[in-house]
Amino acid sequence: MHDYPLTAGTTLLIVLLMFGTAWNVGRAREKYGVKAPATTGNEYFERAYRIQLNTMEWAMVFLPTLWLFAAYVNDRYAMLAGLIGLAGRVLYAVSYQRDPATRGTGFMIGMIAFGIIGLWAGFAVLRTLVGF
Amino acid sequence: MHDYPLTAGTTLLIVLLMFGTAWNVGRAREKYGVKAPATTGNEYFERAYRIQLNTMEWAMVFLPTLWLFAAYVNDRYAMLAGLIGLAGRVLYAVSYQRDPATRGTGFMIGMIAFGIIGLWAGFAVLRTLVGF
Amino acid sequence: MHDYPLTAGTTLLIVLLMFGTAWNVGRAREKYGVKAPATTGNEYFERAYRIQLNTMEWAMVFLPTLWLFAAYVNDRYAMLAGLIGLAGRVLYAVSYQRDPATRGTGFMIGMIAFGIIGLWAGFAVLRTLVGF
Repeated sequence: MHDYPLTAGTTLLIVLLMFGTAWNVGRAREKYGVKAPATTGNEYFERAYRIQLNTMEWAMVFLPTLWLFAAYVNDRYAMLAGLIGLAGRVLYAVSYQRDPATRGTGFMIGMIAFGIIGLWAGFAVLRTLVGF
Repeated sequence: MHDYPLTAGTTLLIVLLMFGTAWNVGRAREKYGVKAPATTGNEYFERAYRIQLNTMEWAMVFLPTLWLFAAYVNDRYAMLAGLIGLAGRVLYAVSYQRDPATRGTGFMIGMIAFGIIGLWAGFAVLRTLVGF
Repeated sequence: MHDYPLTAGTTLLIVLLMFGTAWNVGRAREKYGVKAPATTGNEYFERAYRIQLNTMEWAMVFLPTLWLFAAYVNDRYAMLAGLIGLAGRVLYAVSYQRDPATRGTGFMIGMIAFGIIGLWAGFAVLRTLVGF
């Protein structure tokens, strides 16, 4: 990991986004009076909760792919793709909280960033294995 | 990660499964008319949603263990265990969607693959630490 | 990963905690008769389920940070922080299951351990990038 400082920094920012969305759920729990272990009962709390879970789901596919991309393609492009994906997911979180119907754009940006590094990393790994 | 190309390829396939189960939830949301942020209200949607979360839960314990196994045991066995675990989870996803009662076999295969790499990696790490 | 055996061992213990909380959900499903795909209907089952998800959420931010910390700071401190965080999360799981109102202490310990390695790793990565 020492050889990929840009990917390392990008990863910490993505971790920070996950932390932020989790923090937001805790705040929403108090603000809207939704007592643990309940996760339903208030529309705004449910949004915060969905944002957290969806952010985690995205990170769960994005982060392993990002590191494979960094290792098999390069660190600089990984940072670039990571920051674009991150920007998409910040937009997603902010717009979902305001109005779930507007969450599409941020979602698509995060998805496209994932699609690109996923296909590219897959190609690079395959090339390493098959040797073409 | 460059030294473990087989584990890298296997990881991308597992990421693809996570992506597939997430995609399936999005499709089920439209098909069965379950509007975000709701996650209940239709049996088939709920199944798709549980499959996604359970797949992620499995990957969350499986992937870190798989990489430690690759590093402390070897890349080839890691791929083998990864593909068996993956096959189990694909079976799990397909059978859960059809009938939750039949999800046991795929679950067990995924669990056994995890158990084997977990114990083996634990043993290998311990041997490195204690030096026997 | 071969250079960080203490972090490797700590990671396997954290994976074990995730596995344990997942196992507990399966047991609670049978014990309290909550049939898949339902995740509500019994208070004790819901606690077990929240514990599992929350443990995973914590691991999702903690594990990537822990490995970056190991790579950019050192392996020994990573183990120390990892074990403190793990102890906090075990306390969290046990107290949440008994009474959700008492889950705060364990939560705080896990959070502080994360905060320390997060800030420290962020600083170390930044120093590598900027070269001060």
